[in-house]
Amino acid sequence: MSHIVELLAVGTELLLGNTVNSDAQMLSRELSALGLNVYYHSVVGDNPERLHRSVELARSRADVLITTGGLGPTCDDLTKKVVAQAYGLELEYHPECAAAIRDFFARSGRAMTENNLQQAWLPQGCTILENRWGTAPGCAFQSGAHYVVMLPGPPRECIPMFREEAAPWLARLREGVICSRTLRVFGRGESQVESLLRGRMNALTNPTLAPYAKEGEMELRVTAKADSQAAAQALIAPVEQEVRALLGELIYGTGEDTLERVVLEGMKARGLTLGTAESCTGGLIAKRLTDLPGASAVFRGGVVSYTNQVKAQVLGVPRQLLEEQGAVCADVARAMAQGARRVLGCDAAVSATGVAGPDSDERGNPVGLVYVALAAPEGCWVRKLSLAGASDRRDRVRIMAANHALDMVRRWLAGLEIEKI
Amino acid sequence: MSHIVELLAVGTELLLGNTVNSDAQMLSRELSALGLNVYYHSVVGDNPERLHRSVELARSRADVLITTGGLGPTCDDLTKKVVAQAYGLELEYHPECAAAIRDFFARSGRAMTENNLQQAWLPQGCTILENRWGTAPGCAFQSGAHYVVMLPGPPRECIPMFREEAAPWLARLREGVICSRTLRVFGRGESQVESLLRGRMNALTNPTLAPYAKEGEMELRVTAKADSQAAAQALIAPVEQEVRALLGELIYGTGEDTLERVVLEGMKARGLTLGTAESCTGGLIAKRLTDLPGASAVFRGGVVSYTNQVKAQVLGVPRQLLEEQGAVCADVARAMAQGARRVLGCDAAVSATGVAGPDSDERGNPVGLVYVALAAPEGCWVRKLSLAGASDRRDRVRIMAANHALDMVRRWLAGLEIEKI
Repeated sequence: MSHIVELLAVGTELLLGNTVNSDAQMLSRELSALGLNVYYHSVVGDNPERLHRSVELARSRADVLITTGGLGPTCDDLTKKVVAQAYGLELEYHPECAAAIRDFFARSGRAMTENNLQQAWLPQGCTILENRWGTAPGCAFQSGAHYVVMLPGPPRECIPMFREEAAPWLARLREGVICSRTLRVFGRGESQVESLLRGRMNALTNPTLAPYAKEGEMELRVTAKADSQAAAQALIAPVEQEVRALLGELIYGTGEDTLERVVLEGMKARGLTLGTAESCTGGLIAKRLTDLPGASAVFRGGVVSYTNQVKAQVLGVPRQLLEEQGAVCADVARAMAQGARRVLGCDAAVSATGVAGPDSDERGNPVGLVYVALAAPEGCWVRKLSLAGASDRRDRVRIMAANHALDMVRRWLAGLEIEKI
Repeated sequence: MSHIVELLAVGTELLLGNTVNSDAQMLSRELSALGLNVYYHSVVGDNPERLHRSVELARSRADVLITTGGLGPTCDDLTKKVVAQAYGLELEYHPECAAAIRDFFARSGRAMTENNLQQAWLPQGCTILENRWGTAPGCAFQSGAHYVVMLPGPPRECIPMFREEAAPWLARLREGVICSRTLRVFGRGESQVESLLRGRMNALTNPTLAPYAKEGEMELRVTAKADSQAAAQALIAPVEQEVRALLGELIYGTGEDTLERVVLEGMKARGLTLGTAESCTGGLIAKRLTDLPGASAVFRGGVVSYTNQVKAQVLGVPRQLLEEQGAVCADVARAMAQGARRVLGCDAAVSATGVAGPDSDERGNPVGLVYVALAAPEGCWVRKLSLAGASDRRDRVRIMAANHALDMVRRWLAGLEIEKI
């Protein structure tokens, strides 16, 4: 029988929106990797009755309950009291925990208030989960066919405690592993890709194939459950091949790849340098490239030419061209990329000029009209984009323009055809 | 009787930990501001039976159900089907929604696949919540004493739709008003500011005073509940004065202000222009300035000088200085700002050069050592920063460097003293 996990977070601050439940995300990832199925996340405030009902509910629909929060000295150990009571257990005092708490304060050179010792009371017969990252110990116990783990709320305590203390205890529940493979797709809308794959997505059960829309791109995840990593990979491989056959060059990477990373790694592998000339993206392309450690091996620099004067003076875009055609046209995009390549002394340069919005420009060019260009040793490519989308969202237009500019470099490096206008 | 709200997020990606439930956090904040009590957050996967049981549960313990996710074309509108069924409603086809969806694709110049039209099926008699940020419309309906709102999952659609479409619909449930005033603070650590205010924070009940740590800055929110906006504002005003008296010039703005916005508005009001010269921030400062519509009235452009060659060739930083002292020093920061001011032809320019990490530079400068400079008509200021903090986080170092550079401009505009090294 396969286990069903419920994550129950305790804390009014979550219900007020003061904090986001990142514990649930991190624990869900870790649990999937252990081959355990998380069916529910719940959040309840620091309220004994509602917490009690939530624990009873979790007990009725899951056989593994993992709580986060409510273990600290300021909340009267609400979670331990209520959970222990729900499972008919008393709390007992653990001198070794008290010693560890005193020790923690001694090491951090802070005075310990007595209420901290409440944290040394734990359900009878539980396995203590040591907290080396804070003061509140966690605990784990089995009650019949049910398994309960209690962890502190602060992510910097919760996550390492899960990995080092709770995961080994939960290993007894493992039935195989879950592996997934992520393919990153750029160049088509989610619904277009989804309609290409819908048949397979509905037909597949193990592995499963699922799309996730990201800002301006999408992610396809193949997830398999099996007894071993190797067996799971063997289930994933043919489906990945199938998807690659269908989407081909729309797949730009896997796993944690981003367009900027694929571009930087491709350029680095060839010993090439890159530069940028940005108008409507205002530095976003350079910012994304330099988000990555080691960008300096490839990225030489960029010019944010937000005015025509800067386009002309710094990048050498002909003033006459700017006066006659304005800043938003194919020739200016080309001149910006070529100018950046020359001024920055790099092998290739990308540019973006367009109307990010919210209003159309003084020449009546619509929001979302963007030209991106790539200047490379063998020539220059320019693409015309219409990125307005639903809402004339300035940030979305800028992100999409940057994605398309980076994708041009990606395609150039891969020797793929680049659509021209 | 006071209303009880449950937030129910639908999506297997949340249970796999692929995404964090940020909608729940944002909606919880918005709902508190409306004076509604959120008692439960739940997350369930794309599974009809479990979703059905979760909806029944929410119905039994809350009178306001707000769902997020499961409205898109790739998930067969799971949420609408199941929720409508739970409340005994049929789905009906709304041609106006279909038209809006077709229009969305037309404007974004993408081909629309038929599956998108599933999104035009909504529960009979519901109020349609228009989605101007994506394709899936939301909806809201009342069933007896119960209120149901369905929103799409992507935060960039969910949050604006809640504010502009769902919140007005929910206004019927309000009992009194909750107003809050946000003060934005930069220049001191959260714990320092908190220790200054702790006494008042603990003493206050209505209004409340609460700090929220943001990336590299913090937010202080004064929140009052009263029968009218005016009464709430009257409670807030004296506390705001008190906080301002304590924190003074550390408060750079209110509400939705950001450092970049305060800088742009201050420059614009004086008819001044701004430029940037960025090394370690790699375009982040320019990107943040140009995130804002109308930036072009102030921001002329920037140079991302990621290599010494670009610093020398484009910004005119003396090569000898770069060779002798390296790129990370006060003189280079000064020369970059002065160079940008000259090359870009702007009234003032800011620069940042430093070690973003993850590794110290070839001269052994530590991660987080950053110099920021401001070149203005009356002179040049340079500050030395140590930003490594607890974790040597590259993105944090870059964000903090950008914040400090922008704050220098803010202080210059306000005629405040700028710490020098």
